[in-house]
Amino acid sequence: MDTKQKVFEICSAAKKASYEYAARSTKEKNHILSSIANALKENSKEILEANARDIALADANGVPAHMLDRLALNGGRIDGICDALRSLVSLRDPVGCGEVFSTPGGLWIECQRAPLGVVAIIYEARPNVTVDAAALCLKTGNAVVLRGGREAANTNLVLINVMKKCISECGQNPDILGFIEPGEGHESANALMSARGLVDVLIPRGSKRLIDAVVNNASVPVIETGAGNCHLYVDASANIDMALNIAVNAKCSRPAVCNAIETLLVHKDVAKDFLPKFAEATAGYSLELRGCEQTLRIVPEAKKASESDFETEFDDYILAVKLVSSVEEAVAHINKYNTGHSEAIVTNDEQNAEYFRKYVDAAAVYVNASTRFTDGGEFGFGAEIGISTQKLHARGPMGLTALTTQKYLIRGNGQVR
Amino acid sequence: MDTKQKVFEICSAAKKASYEYAARSTKEKNHILSSIANALKENSKEILEANARDIALADANGVPAHMLDRLALNGGRIDGICDALRSLVSLRDPVGCGEVFSTPGGLWIECQRAPLGVVAIIYEARPNVTVDAAALCLKTGNAVVLRGGREAANTNLVLINVMKKCISECGQNPDILGFIEPGEGHESANALMSARGLVDVLIPRGSKRLIDAVVNNASVPVIETGAGNCHLYVDASANIDMALNIAVNAKCSRPAVCNAIETLLVHKDVAKDFLPKFAEATAGYSLELRGCEQTLRIVPEAKKASESDFETEFDDYILAVKLVSSVEEAVAHINKYNTGHSEAIVTNDEQNAEYFRKYVDAAAVYVNASTRFTDGGEFGFGAEIGISTQKLHARGPMGLTALTTQKYLIRGNGQVR
Repeated sequence: MDTKQKVFEICSAAKKASYEYAARSTKEKNHILSSIANALKENSKEILEANARDIALADANGVPAHMLDRLALNGGRIDGICDALRSLVSLRDPVGCGEVFSTPGGLWIECQRAPLGVVAIIYEARPNVTVDAAALCLKTGNAVVLRGGREAANTNLVLINVMKKCISECGQNPDILGFIEPGEGHESANALMSARGLVDVLIPRGSKRLIDAVVNNASVPVIETGAGNCHLYVDASANIDMALNIAVNAKCSRPAVCNAIETLLVHKDVAKDFLPKFAEATAGYSLELRGCEQTLRIVPEAKKASESDFETEFDDYILAVKLVSSVEEAVAHINKYNTGHSEAIVTNDEQNAEYFRKYVDAAAVYVNASTRFTDGGEFGFGAEIGISTQKLHARGPMGLTALTTQKYLIRGNGQVR
Repeated sequence: MDTKQKVFEICSAAKKASYEYAARSTKEKNHILSSIANALKENSKEILEANARDIALADANGVPAHMLDRLALNGGRIDGICDALRSLVSLRDPVGCGEVFSTPGGLWIECQRAPLGVVAIIYEARPNVTVDAAALCLKTGNAVVLRGGREAANTNLVLINVMKKCISECGQNPDILGFIEPGEGHESANALMSARGLVDVLIPRGSKRLIDAVVNNASVPVIETGAGNCHLYVDASANIDMALNIAVNAKCSRPAVCNAIETLLVHKDVAKDFLPKFAEATAGYSLELRGCEQTLRIVPEAKKASESDFETEFDDYILAVKLVSSVEEAVAHINKYNTGHSEAIVTNDEQNAEYFRKYVDAAAVYVNASTRFTDGGEFGFGAEIGISTQKLHARGPMGLTALTTQKYLIRGNGQVR
């Protein structure tokens, strides 16, 4: 059997099992999650052994240190995964929530949240995502098909077996958790992208290259996540201390995450005051500044920014800097280069704040706060499947509701039209 | 300039104008709609002359009568279009609606509905859709790019010019209404499907072939509408008179629309009573029945159904009929063949009703009412851009809210993470 056939069989089995699973109660679904938390803890030894094999192999293959770190599990990290599962149990199940209304003709219409069906996720070598993503889908009554990075293959196989066993022991069909072994090349990912009618939504989690490949090639519905070319604009009226504090936080607290800023826009009237202080405040991070011509006159140690620097999500201690003459110019720059993730202004001018809020086209628009808050946990959703940078279905941090659709349930007593 | 370049230029102009238009007030947007209603009425003569040229050309090219009817305008139909515009003015604008919450760290978060940006619509030769679709998008703060069927080219050109003039006179940039002349072949449609970054959502309205082509080829986000392979299941416990009334209505009141049924599933215990009565009740419609073997034994005048009959949206006075032994068998058949549109059961058994509601995977699930009610107007939405048969973003009849996304607007006083 070739790869495509194998993938379609796994998806088809998940689809068949999904109808039954979609009707399960919150109690039944929570029971699966609790069982998985217990079982992962009990099987820690086996999980860590498999993970050690993955790490050794990846290390031998020259996988860089920061990727090895994401791949690595230990007792503490397994406890963290189990804690997350238990928190998920306590969250409200969106399935069945909704509104009811009646029509003049006497129809009683309930618009309820319902599971999507089969959610497929393509992700990189992060074993915590294997459990986390599966649990979010199972909590919301969805079947799930996972295709993780090949460097985590041994770890994932053990995790999947533990979870499938729990699902069976809870009386459910283990086909609701499908796992696609990565194999060589992109064949299995391509097959997933084309599994129309079997996959209700595909969520790519990972690099921009992965996400672009999925968006351009998938015929199944996709939710785009992740890419964040975020900006901070320091207005002429800004409180400079607040602006410094926010700028340092937004860039340097965790530069590799999607809600960190990549470009700093500074109003020319405050640049001479602000930029030298900012350069000083970030010296300890060895932050590399890439500035426009005007920036270079104020911060001569900065490198010259090219056009492509304004298009780049550096995910590193690098920041593009540009001086602007107005909030309008700042917003025009943002709407040209941003990826629709998170954008912030520091200002004491209410009109400029309002202009920024109205005209910036992004999932999250901040006034006087750091972009780093764009996160399901920070927004109080309790769990997050990713941050959507698209406009359809879900935009911004996606909680459990983003893993559901709606269903109109109509009752009559013989009405015809 | 080639077709692709032309399409991209129109979309790019719409995109640029969309940022400004997205911030317009409900009053300003309503003013445009009212002006268009007045202007269409005033320009009726020119519109009808252009329409007469389209009709003559289409007739000469052998376009079938039912398509000519959809293409044709007259005074009454223009009045109807103007009335629809005025109703739209009175509907609540979803933009800016939403919820607010605060975080323990003191951030104030507003989650507001916001325009999508640029909505592109590919549709067939129906001039009323040109005005209707444009108006729905303009009401919700979106720029719109229309690509209508070539048979309506003359009519559309006049309609577009009238609308663009109104937009300008209301002080807005007329680029928010883009119009793509159909030309020959599929080039312009293909260009629209690939206008990533310029088109925020593409809605195909028309034949299954058009919708499939868009879904399979588009790299821009798509909302699928329309295809309806709908079913009615007559349960063993059904009130036979009610079942007859609903079945006749669901099939024969307007067989060409997407919420009409294509297959009738009948429990074997009531088939001998129900089917002959149904055949008699539909005799006046010359309804052609295509039945399973068991059906043929009860209604010998029916033709034999093939597998493909159960997969087909006939859109005509043809109905597939199948006998089943249980609600479970009926639901399994529906979930295998349906397009996720509308499904109904007639029953007096509460357990069977509940099973049907829970397990059928469709946008609208009816108990004891006709599938024909799946419609924005019937559901009380006041306007409808189409009926979504997909699960992401919108499912079922799409009102104004389906033409919006959400935007998180966050205010702080210097918070960092």
